[in-house]
Amino acid sequence: MVAILKRGVTDSQIESLCKWFKSKGLDTHISKGHYQTIIGLIGDTSKIDTDLLEGLEIIESATRVSEPFKSANRKFHPEDTRIEIAEGVAIGGGAFSLIAGPCSVENEEQILSVAKSVKYAGASVLRGGAFKPRTSPYDFQGLREEGIELLLAAKRKTGLPIVTEIMDASHLEFFENVDLIQVGARNMQNFELLKELGHTKKPILLKRGLANTLKELLMSAEYIMAGGNENVILCERGVRTFETYTRNTLDLAAVPMLKELSHLPVVVDPSHATGRARLVHPMALAAAAAGADGIMIEVHNDPANALCDGAQSLTPKQFEKTAAAVFAVRDAIKM
Amino acid sequence: MVAILKRGVTDSQIESLCKWFKSKGLDTHISKGHYQTIIGLIGDTSKIDTDLLEGLEIIESATRVSEPFKSANRKFHPEDTRIEIAEGVAIGGGAFSLIAGPCSVENEEQILSVAKSVKYAGASVLRGGAFKPRTSPYDFQGLREEGIELLLAAKRKTGLPIVTEIMDASHLEFFENVDLIQVGARNMQNFELLKELGHTKKPILLKRGLANTLKELLMSAEYIMAGGNENVILCERGVRTFETYTRNTLDLAAVPMLKELSHLPVVVDPSHATGRARLVHPMALAAAAAGADGIMIEVHNDPANALCDGAQSLTPKQFEKTAAAVFAVRDAIKM
Amino acid sequence: MVAILKRGVTDSQIESLCKWFKSKGLDTHISKGHYQTIIGLIGDTSKIDTDLLEGLEIIESATRVSEPFKSANRKFHPEDTRIEIAEGVAIGGGAFSLIAGPCSVENEEQILSVAKSVKYAGASVLRGGAFKPRTSPYDFQGLREEGIELLLAAKRKTGLPIVTEIMDASHLEFFENVDLIQVGARNMQNFELLKELGHTKKPILLKRGLANTLKELLMSAEYIMAGGNENVILCERGVRTFETYTRNTLDLAAVPMLKELSHLPVVVDPSHATGRARLVHPMALAAAAAGADGIMIEVHNDPANALCDGAQSLTPKQFEKTAAAVFAVRDAIKM
Amino acid sequence: MVAILKRGVTDSQIESLCKWFKSKGLDTHISKGHYQTIIGLIGDTSKIDTDLLEGLEIIESATRVSEPFKSANRKFHPEDTRIEIAEGVAIGGGAFSLIAGPCSVENEEQILSVAKSVKYAGASVLRGGAFKPRTSPYDFQGLREEGIELLLAAKRKTGLPIVTEIMDASHLEFFENVDLIQVGARNMQNFELLKELGHTKKPILLKRGLANTLKELLMSAEYIMAGGNENVILCERGVRTFETYTRNTLDLAAVPMLKELSHLPVVVDPSHATGRARLVHPMALAAAAAGADGIMIEVHNDPANALCDGAQSLTPKQFEKTAAAVFAVRDAIKM
Repeated sequence: MVAILKRGVTDSQIESLCKWFKSKGLDTHISKGHYQTIIGLIGDTSKIDTDLLEGLEIIESATRVSEPFKSANRKFHPEDTRIEIAEGVAIGGGAFSLIAGPCSVENEEQILSVAKSVKYAGASVLRGGAFKPRTSPYDFQGLREEGIELLLAAKRKTGLPIVTEIMDASHLEFFENVDLIQVGARNMQNFELLKELGHTKKPILLKRGLANTLKELLMSAEYIMAGGNENVILCERGVRTFETYTRNTLDLAAVPMLKELSHLPVVVDPSHATGRARLVHPMALAAAAAGADGIMIEVHNDPANALCDGAQSLTPKQFEKTAAAVFAVRDAIKM
Repeated sequence: MVAILKRGVTDSQIESLCKWFKSKGLDTHISKGHYQTIIGLIGDTSKIDTDLLEGLEIIESATRVSEPFKSANRKFHPEDTRIEIAEGVAIGGGAFSLIAGPCSVENEEQILSVAKSVKYAGASVLRGGAFKPRTSPYDFQGLREEGIELLLAAKRKTGLPIVTEIMDASHLEFFENVDLIQVGARNMQNFELLKELGHTKKPILLKRGLANTLKELLMSAEYIMAGGNENVILCERGVRTFETYTRNTLDLAAVPMLKELSHLPVVVDPSHATGRARLVHPMALAAAAAGADGIMIEVHNDPANALCDGAQSLTPKQFEKTAAAVFAVRDAIKM
Repeated sequence: MVAILKRGVTDSQIESLCKWFKSKGLDTHISKGHYQTIIGLIGDTSKIDTDLLEGLEIIESATRVSEPFKSANRKFHPEDTRIEIAEGVAIGGGAFSLIAGPCSVENEEQILSVAKSVKYAGASVLRGGAFKPRTSPYDFQGLREEGIELLLAAKRKTGLPIVTEIMDASHLEFFENVDLIQVGARNMQNFELLKELGHTKKPILLKRGLANTLKELLMSAEYIMAGGNENVILCERGVRTFETYTRNTLDLAAVPMLKELSHLPVVVDPSHATGRARLVHPMALAAAAAGADGIMIEVHNDPANALCDGAQSLTPKQFEKTAAAVFAVRDAIKM
Repeated sequence: MVAILKRGVTDSQIESLCKWFKSKGLDTHISKGHYQTIIGLIGDTSKIDTDLLEGLEIIESATRVSEPFKSANRKFHPEDTRIEIAEGVAIGGGAFSLIAGPCSVENEEQILSVAKSVKYAGASVLRGGAFKPRTSPYDFQGLREEGIELLLAAKRKTGLPIVTEIMDASHLEFFENVDLIQVGARNMQNFELLKELGHTKKPILLKRGLANTLKELLMSAEYIMAGGNENVILCERGVRTFETYTRNTLDLAAVPMLKELSHLPVVVDPSHATGRARLVHPMALAAAAAGADGIMIEVHNDPANALCDGAQSLTPKQFEKTAAAVFAVRDAIKM
C-alpha cells in the first residue's frame, strides 16, 4: 500500500503516522520529493482500511498495491480450482457443466419432467427455486422446504445433483443433501450468512450482486473461504444498468477478468440476466465463447399452462438446441 | 393494471387469458381498437407479477396503474405517520429528531462522552455501530453484543434512546432494549430478516440499498408492515453513481418523493452518503430544507487518536454548529 | 399510445383532452372502468411527447405501444439491412467484417504497416483515429486532417476501405473519401451533427453513448435516417457501470436485442469496451457468438516503442490469432 | 504522479521508462522497496495519460497526485470567481442569482409575460430554450434563431439578461447579444464546441452530463478555459441513476464538492433534475441550503393551455413562493 501525503505535512506528523503503522505490524518506506512525500507500507496491509487512511487530514490518497482478497487470489494459488459437485460432476479446472431447471419448483411431476429433459439434453446439474427472494411480500415465496424435498426426489430418480438457493442461515438444516448451495444476488453481502456458509464444507454458488463490482464479489467469496470453506463458484448474472429492454446487463468480460484475478470457477446465468427467452440462446453461446466454466439456464416444461412460466425460460426443445450449440462453441474455441 | 396485447392475437387467445385472470380473482375490461386490444384488470392486482405477464407471447406490455405497495401507501393512509422512539422522542408527523453518535462503539468512555456531547448539542437519539457490515472479512466487525451493552449503558446515563444495526434475525435477543433497530443498506432486500422484524413491535429504521429504487425501498417496508409492524422509518443514505469524489450520491429528492408516495417518516444520513466530513454540514442543511423528519450524523470524540475515526465523522464542536444551523433552516422553511 | 387518467377526472376534462389529441391528428378510444379511464390514441403518435403527457395533472401514466423510432424499426422493414462499405465489402444482411487498426494514426509507416498486417489476418476495413475526442484539452488531439490523409494513403496502397471518427459537421469536407464515418460515443446525442450526416449518403458507424439506452441509440439512428441517409451501422462499445477492473461493461445482449428491434447491422468494439488487451480476445469471440455483423479491434505495430500504444491494443500477431478464432466461432454457430 | 511498478521489473526496463519520462520533461524519483518499486514523477504531469501508463506491461498502477485540471483548480486560484452576466447581475464570489423562464420560447406574448412575472418575483436572469436538443427527430426542435430574437425582445423590455442553449458552434453568430450561453448536458463532451466557446469572451453555463463525474465536468470547463475564456459557470442538473420516480437524481453534494475543488461558481437546476413540478420547491430550498451560487427554475404562464407546458414547470405564483423561500433559506444559513 502506498500513501501519498498532503503538502505541508510536518516531520512530527509523519513520525506519528509511521508509529501508528508500526503498531499495526507494518514496515514503512518513506520517500520525500520536492512536491510530496510518499510512504510505502510493507507487510500484511489487508487489515488496513483505505477509507480510514484517506480520511486522515494529512493524507492525500492511499492506493492498495496488492488486492485485498487473499484466499481467492490467483497470485497465491496459480492453478485453476476444480470443484466436485457430485461424483463425476465438476466445475472449473477444465471441467464444464450445464445447469438447468425451472425458476420455481412447483410440484413433483413438473420437476421430474424437467429434470429428465435437461439431463437428456446434456445438463449435468438440476436447478430449481425452493426459497424464493421476491421484491414483493405478496408474490409467491416458493414451496420452501417442501420444494427442496421435491428436488431431492428428482435427484434420486435422475441421478442429477441439485443446486438451490438459501436465504437465511437458519434454513441450513434443509440443505443437508443439496449438492450446491446458491447465494442469490440480493444476499451477496449478507455477511452473517456468508460466515455461516464458511463453516460448512458445501460447494457454494455465489451470485454477483445487482450493482456490485468484481472486487466486492471476490471479497464476499473471501468471507466464505476465510471460514474454511474453499468450495466457492462465482456466478455472473447481470448487473443493473440504465438499459430497460433487458432486465439486467450481462457482463461477460467478468468471465476472463475474474479468471485472471482468481483461481475460482466462473458460471454464467443468461436467463436472469436478460429476462427474455429469445436472448438466452445467443447469450449462452457468448458465455461459452468467453470461457465460462458453467452455464445456468432456466427451462420450463409446461406448454399447456405457459402462463405460470417465466418470460425467461426455454422449453426443453429450445434447451436441447442451445445445449448442442454451446458444446459446438466450446469445441470451436479449443482449436 | 392494464395489459396491451400484441397485434394478431386471436379471440380464443384473449378468452383463455381472461379466464386465467378470472381464476386470479380479477375482473377484466376489454377494449378493442383498430391497432391493438387493451385489457384493463380490476381487483387486487398486487398479486399479479408484471414480469410474468410481459413474458407471455401475446402481451406487448403490462402497466400497473396502482402501486404494488399498500400498507406503506399514502393513498390508503393520507395522514403522516408519527413514530414514537421513546417517551417524548418521535419522528414523523411534524416531529423531528437529530440522531448522532459514532460509527462504531469502541469502549464505554468513548460512547458516553459522545452521547453527552450530542445530547448537549440537541440530538435526541444516540446512534452507534455494534454489529458492523464490512466488505472485507479482515476488517473490524464491531464489538457485537458487547457494543449493544455499552450503548445501553450510555442510554441509562444520558436518557437518550438508541439506534443500532441488526445483521441477522438470530441476533434479535440482543436488541430487546434497543429503541430503534436499523436495517442497513446491504440488507434492505434480506427478506427473511425483514419478515422476522415484521413480527416484532420495534420501530425499524430501514435504509435504502446502494442501488435500489424508491419503489423497492417501499416494497421492503411493505415486507415489515405486512407482518404487522407498522413502525417503519425510511432512510435515504445515498445511492451508487459514477461519481468518485463522494462515496455515494445523496438523493435528496427522495425525501419529498417518498413523502408523496407514503405516509412513513423519512430520515437522511449525510455522513455515509458523502463519506467526507466537510460535506456533512451543507448536506445536513440541505436535508432539513428538503423536509426530512430526521437527520443522522456521525460524531466522534477522539482528537488524540483521530486515526481510528472515520473520514466522515464530525467532532462534537462541529456537530454543535451543524445542529444549530439545521434548526435555523427548519425555522426558515416554516415561514 | 395509451393514457391512463387519474381517478376523479371530470367528463369536461376528458373532453378537453380529447379535443387536444384531435388537434394533433389522433383518434381517441375511451374506455371507462370502475376505477379508471383509459384513452387509447390511434394514429401517428410518434410526435406526442410522453413526458409532456405524464406531466398533465389529469394523467396517471402514458405508455407507448409502438416504438418511437420508425425508419430504424424492424416492424416496418423486416429484412436485415446490408450496407456496402466499398466494393466487395459489406456489413449486415449476412455479411460480416473485421475492422482493425490503431487507436490513433501516428505516421505513414505506422498506419501502412498495421494496414498490411490486419489485411493479411482477415480484416476487411481499416480503422484509425485522426480527430480524437479526449477528456483533457492537454491530451493528444490526433493528427486531424493530416491523419485522414495518411489513412487515405494506406487505403490506396492496400485497397482496404477506411473508417474514422468525425467530431464536428464543419469537418465534413475532409471525409469525402472516407468510406465509413464514425460518430463517437460522446457525440451520439450531438443532434446537429446527426442531422448533417443525414444529408449525406455516407455509411455511418454510430457508437452507443456511455450511459445511453438502446432506445436512445435507435432514436439517434433515426435522426440520421430521417434526413434521408439510411446507411447506419449501430455499434456497441460498452456502457458505464460501477465496475472498475474494466473500463466499461460490454453489453453483448445488445446485439440480439438491437437485431430484434431493428433491421440495421450491429458491430461490436471489444477494445474500447474493456480497455485491456487480454480481454479483447475472449470478448471478440463472445461478440461473434452473440451474432455481431462486425467486430472492430485495435491493433498496434510498435513493439520497440510500446509506450505510445494503448493498453487495449493487440499486436498484429495476437490479432491474427483472434481473427482466426472469430471465424471459427462464426462457423460453429452456423451449424 | 506516482507509478507503481510490477514485481520482477528489471533495472534496464526501469531505466528505459525513466528515459521516456525525461523526454516528456519530467523528473523522476525512484524508490525501491522489498516488494515493489515506486517512481514519483515531478513536473507538469497534466500531459501524461494515466490510461496509457497503466497499459504498460511493467506498470501495476499509476496515480495522479495533482488534479488534471489547472485553470479551474482552486489550488492555483484560491479566491471564488465572480462572473458578471450583465451590469449589476453576477454569479459567484458571494453573488447569487435566480434564473427563471420557460422550457421553450413559444411566442412573444408568452416570453414577455413570463419575463415580467419572474422579474417581479426576484429572478435576475431570464432563461428560455430556442435551440432544443430532443431525443427524437420528430419532437419539437425549438424556434431556433427566431426564439433568440424573442428572448432579446423580452430582454429589451424587462432589462433582464438572458441565457439560452447553443447546440453547434456554427450557430454562434445568433448568440452575439445573448448574455450567458448554455452548453447542455448532452454536449458537455462536445469538445469541438467547447474549444470554439473558449475563443469567445462570453460567460458560459456548462451543464454536467447525464452520467459524467465532477472531474469530467471540470475537464470540460478546462477545455473552455484553456482557450482563454475563464467565464465558466458550472451547473448541476441531475445525473442518471436507477430511480424512475424522478427523471434524474439531483446531486446536491456536487455543490460543496465543486466549490472545494474549483473557484468557479456553481448553479443548480432542480427543474430538469426532477422532472416534476412538485419537487422543484423543496429541491430549490435544498440547493440554497447546500450553498449554490444560483438556481435555475422553469416557469410557464399558460394556465389556459397547460397541455403545452412541461411537467416540471412552476406557475408564476408558485415561483413567487419558491423564490421567497429560497431567499429565507439563504438568510438562515448565513447566521
